[in-house]
Amino acid sequence: MAFGWIDEQAELRRRAGLVRTLRPRAAESALLDLASNDYLGLARHPEVTEGAARAARTWGGGSTGSRLVTGSTELHAELEGELADFCGFEAALVFSSGYAANLAVVTALAPHGSLIVSDAGNHASLIDGCRLARGTTQVAAHADPDAVRKALGGHEGPAVAVSDTVFSVDGDAAPLTGLAEACREHGAGLVLDDAHGLGVLGDGGRGAPHAAGLAGADDVVVTVTLSKSLGGQGGAVLGPSRVIGHQDNAARTFIFDTGLAPAAAGAALAALRLLRREPARAARAGEVARELHTRLTAAGLEAVRPDAAVVSVRAPSPEQAVRWAADCRAAGLSVGCFRPPSVPDGVSRLRLTARADLSGAEIERAVQVIGETRP
Amino acid sequence: MAFGWIDEQAELRRRAGLVRTLRPRAAESALLDLASNDYLGLARHPEVTEGAARAARTWGGGSTGSRLVTGSTELHAELEGELADFCGFEAALVFSSGYAANLAVVTALAPHGSLIVSDAGNHASLIDGCRLARGTTQVAAHADPDAVRKALGGHEGPAVAVSDTVFSVDGDAAPLTGLAEACREHGAGLVLDDAHGLGVLGDGGRGAPHAAGLAGADDVVVTVTLSKSLGGQGGAVLGPSRVIGHQDNAARTFIFDTGLAPAAAGAALAALRLLRREPARAARAGEVARELHTRLTAAGLEAVRPDAAVVSVRAPSPEQAVRWAADCRAAGLSVGCFRPPSVPDGVSRLRLTARADLSGAEIERAVQVIGETRP
Repeated sequence: MAFGWIDEQAELRRRAGLVRTLRPRAAESALLDLASNDYLGLARHPEVTEGAARAARTWGGGSTGSRLVTGSTELHAELEGELADFCGFEAALVFSSGYAANLAVVTALAPHGSLIVSDAGNHASLIDGCRLARGTTQVAAHADPDAVRKALGGHEGPAVAVSDTVFSVDGDAAPLTGLAEACREHGAGLVLDDAHGLGVLGDGGRGAPHAAGLAGADDVVVTVTLSKSLGGQGGAVLGPSRVIGHQDNAARTFIFDTGLAPAAAGAALAALRLLRREPARAARAGEVARELHTRLTAAGLEAVRPDAAVVSVRAPSPEQAVRWAADCRAAGLSVGCFRPPSVPDGVSRLRLTARADLSGAEIERAVQVIGETRP
Repeated sequence: MAFGWIDEQAELRRRAGLVRTLRPRAAESALLDLASNDYLGLARHPEVTEGAARAARTWGGGSTGSRLVTGSTELHAELEGELADFCGFEAALVFSSGYAANLAVVTALAPHGSLIVSDAGNHASLIDGCRLARGTTQVAAHADPDAVRKALGGHEGPAVAVSDTVFSVDGDAAPLTGLAEACREHGAGLVLDDAHGLGVLGDGGRGAPHAAGLAGADDVVVTVTLSKSLGGQGGAVLGPSRVIGHQDNAARTFIFDTGLAPAAAGAALAALRLLRREPARAARAGEVARELHTRLTAAGLEAVRPDAAVVSVRAPSPEQAVRWAADCRAAGLSVGCFRPPSVPDGVSRLRLTARADLSGAEIERAVQVIGETRP
């Protein structure tokens, strides 16, 4: 029977403790949220939700077509201009998701005959970009500029190195300066996914590439998401105008996708303007993360030192990770629970996100609950 | 220099008349729109824009995380329930785009060792799904159940046939009954992308699979988009619960993408309810398309007989297609202009969309402008 094999896979997943189920949340919740990627606490800020509402009223519920047909509004152009300016790049192009932006940039910048050197810890969307690209992919050891250098050394023709700036699972940062040096020695481009850096790292939240002095470089292209610190939906590619114009013409997930909905663009634009006005929000997210780490470590838990706003805590097994997260939830705390295949090393974790708007009392409560419920 | 090769590609595109540039539109325009995919004219309907605005206020500017972490709200569940019910399927799962939904369904339903039989005219997102899937792809002749039958006949193990229900470029319909028969003879699943059928075809707009008696079948899975007739953004997969639950667990573009923004879900839900209340909108879109086709043909233009709401008109060359569309625009009419690589046969076209809310006078004006500006 068609799809009969799915039942067998479901049974295998059940036995391995790897079943995922959706848990739709209510609009108002008493849970303390350390699970979302709303790093700056802006998703429900009135300016952001009003930005979304106003955009829907002015421009419609959807963008009505591909960006190349009717799906580009002046609102998209405004957001692209302000994002590029904020992050220090010449131009930007907005996509319906960060996933789509990553597929676009990797496929468009890795033509037939080219080499992609991809960090072993990269996000699924970058990996899928490598798999869709016509170029050849070499996976390099995690966060290792020498591995990138070595891979690039054996190749003639166009090449790019591709890396997250902050890795989603453990929240560790990539060695951007070293990666840029390795690329420049070989005339290769550097593609960085700053999904977890924008709004958290760099001067006023301008992102990890800006902090590393790579913003605006003619050999650096950055993707960001509008759905994390900017509280909306969508993604963007930032870079030199020639590279951005190339996306218009060569990126299938740009050409053949409906443009981002106006409300999502309006939300992100409002959040960006708010962040410009209140730059201290960015640094605060990092402070909260470091405080969480210090306290969790003091409580004897195995937590990874955070480079941005993600704090990862090791769990003994997938089943225990699930139970731990459920016990946290029962005690009023919402935390992420990452299991295979969402973790590169097969180790399950609790994943905490350090929102800039968490109070000292909330941090203390979170640490207490995590400690008390540990397996 | 990194990215230097992009300049050469840009030069080649310029010489071939294939440069694409963005033209951001204003919120209000005097142009008559026959270019958008807003088939029912709902994207700017007050109920739809209010649905978006209310959702943003209630739920936030973004969904704040992956659907499996914090990105599933009760609003998503509500939309999924009503979509599945409307289209006649057991369950539904909403994605951030139709592109993501298509990548998900093809990759999740075509494991290692399986066969995908893909129509030669399929949308880019289905093609990318095939390229990402672990199964092997065989491309079958366009709209040809016998070709699908033949391809399936030589394979042992899981198999799916994948097809658009209405092909985006020419607006022609797939032979759904024949495809289903071919699949059933071989125990294969049938995956249908109803992006251009939902809201236009079937009883009250329930879509092409519903019209073909395939809704709710245990061997049929359908993807739809929320960004065309429903005036929002996003996509959905509809099918048996076991297949939908499998997406939760196996589809990378579901697991690793941020959930759809509440405003987009709210817009689509409002549009869906409006369509249930006013089912005549669906049939009207088809009538407008047939009237456009009749009049264009009477004016001596080469137009494809429409099976849904897309009317395609042949142009002699990419350059002339671009000039034709520009001349239409100068005369107050916005039409789509499809050129390689967006056309499967290399033939450039004007692409007209027949909105349900076009008046007789508007149809007449559109036909007149297209006739007067023909190359």
